[in-house]
Amino acid sequence: MTGHAGIKALVFDVFGTVVDWRSGVARAVEPFLQHHAPQLDAHEFADAWRREYSPSMEEIRSGRRPYVRLDVLHRENLVKALAHHGIDGVSADELDELNLAWHWLDPWPDAIEGLLRLKRRFIIAPLSNGNIRLMIDMAKRAALPWDAILGAEVVRAYKPSPRVYTETAEILGLPPDQVCMVAAHNGDLAAARGCGLKTAFVKRPNEHGPAQTTDLSAAQQWDFIADDFNELATRLGCAV
Amino acid sequence: MTGHAGIKALVFDVFGTVVDWRSGVARAVEPFLQHHAPQLDAHEFADAWRREYSPSMEEIRSGRRPYVRLDVLHRENLVKALAHHGIDGVSADELDELNLAWHWLDPWPDAIEGLLRLKRRFIIAPLSNGNIRLMIDMAKRAALPWDAILGAEVVRAYKPSPRVYTETAEILGLPPDQVCMVAAHNGDLAAARGCGLKTAFVKRPNEHGPAQTTDLSAAQQWDFIADDFNELATRLGCAV
Repeated sequence: MTGHAGIKALVFDVFGTVVDWRSGVARAVEPFLQHHAPQLDAHEFADAWRREYSPSMEEIRSGRRPYVRLDVLHRENLVKALAHHGIDGVSADELDELNLAWHWLDPWPDAIEGLLRLKRRFIIAPLSNGNIRLMIDMAKRAALPWDAILGAEVVRAYKPSPRVYTETAEILGLPPDQVCMVAAHNGDLAAARGCGLKTAFVKRPNEHGPAQTTDLSAAQQWDFIADDFNELATRLGCAV
Repeated sequence: MTGHAGIKALVFDVFGTVVDWRSGVARAVEPFLQHHAPQLDAHEFADAWRREYSPSMEEIRSGRRPYVRLDVLHRENLVKALAHHGIDGVSADELDELNLAWHWLDPWPDAIEGLLRLKRRFIIAPLSNGNIRLMIDMAKRAALPWDAILGAEVVRAYKPSPRVYTETAEILGLPPDQVCMVAAHNGDLAAARGCGLKTAFVKRPNEHGPAQTTDLSAAQQWDFIADDFNELATRLGCAV
């Protein structure tokens, strides 16, 4: 592990790292499913919806499709997940409403306290594939104390495309090694490291529920490894 | 004056509307001038630096030059203002340091309290020509409670180009008439109104010092007119 000398900004993966998307989406779709598909488990549906996430962004990362914001992809992916489970006859208004599930996710219990400690010493911002309005809604509801909303929409590209990381550092007016990517996902950190950013792995072993098999531990010797945001704040020299 | 029904987000001009750039820049350049040009008044130098602001952006608005962030223009304009006053022999490091004057400006006395009231009811964000890092530094120092940093750098264009306003509304996921532009400048509001945004004029009669002649009053019947941010918050139905 290296020291934190020189780090000026921390940028955060959000879905899974800052907020618990699976419980939040399940909670939001539950009343809808009770009406339309009472046999279907809400967490299973959340997983099905999320399974479309990476393939839908891959269309854009590959250049086959121009950038559209994540709200658009989430809505298309919702339609696919509904079709997959044989649920039809859902109105456009209902789809729009369900799609907001991603705007109202709860942070992990340590997230706010950790972010408030980190904010006193560093610039803190999401570097998420979520679009700006989604991040604003989430932050206002949950009191996430971001200094700015950075990420995919600002640079019009999706992680792990390298320019998401490099252009974000440039926007921050910092050399990449003064920016630290914080994520619960080894793949995100590998891409950030490839662009010269510092890296911090925070364990989120229940992101995918009790049967999670991925990202249970650090796959590389990341610059910082922590069990939660409070431990990360301590490692980065932030007062309690 | 119209009602505020339907407005979901307030976007703010910053230099002159939220912060007092003239006093702040004068304060920052004062020690430098005492050393290099003791006969020169710091406020006069601030005015000279600011005079280059609009022409420098016009190069980009006109399409003659690709977008560069305001920090870059400010630095070039500083070099021009120094040359204009016959000041030379300034090192690159000194120029970089002076250029940060625009990052550390003080808010007008009513700004923070008004923004905190407005934030409880609306999304609030700067819609400034200042770049993201500049806005972050200013907000962290002065505790400006923005929900996001929007503006020129996010859309890579300068006000009053129409797409700064229209693309900002789009990023917010709102029709233009659910977004209200707040500014002390009639020109900014006219451009915003031309794009369908609501408009709020806040008087800042000392932005240019005691001899100010421009923007002393509302040039059109803007949707809201207020003497300061607290009065604006009251007009917009925000609790104290």
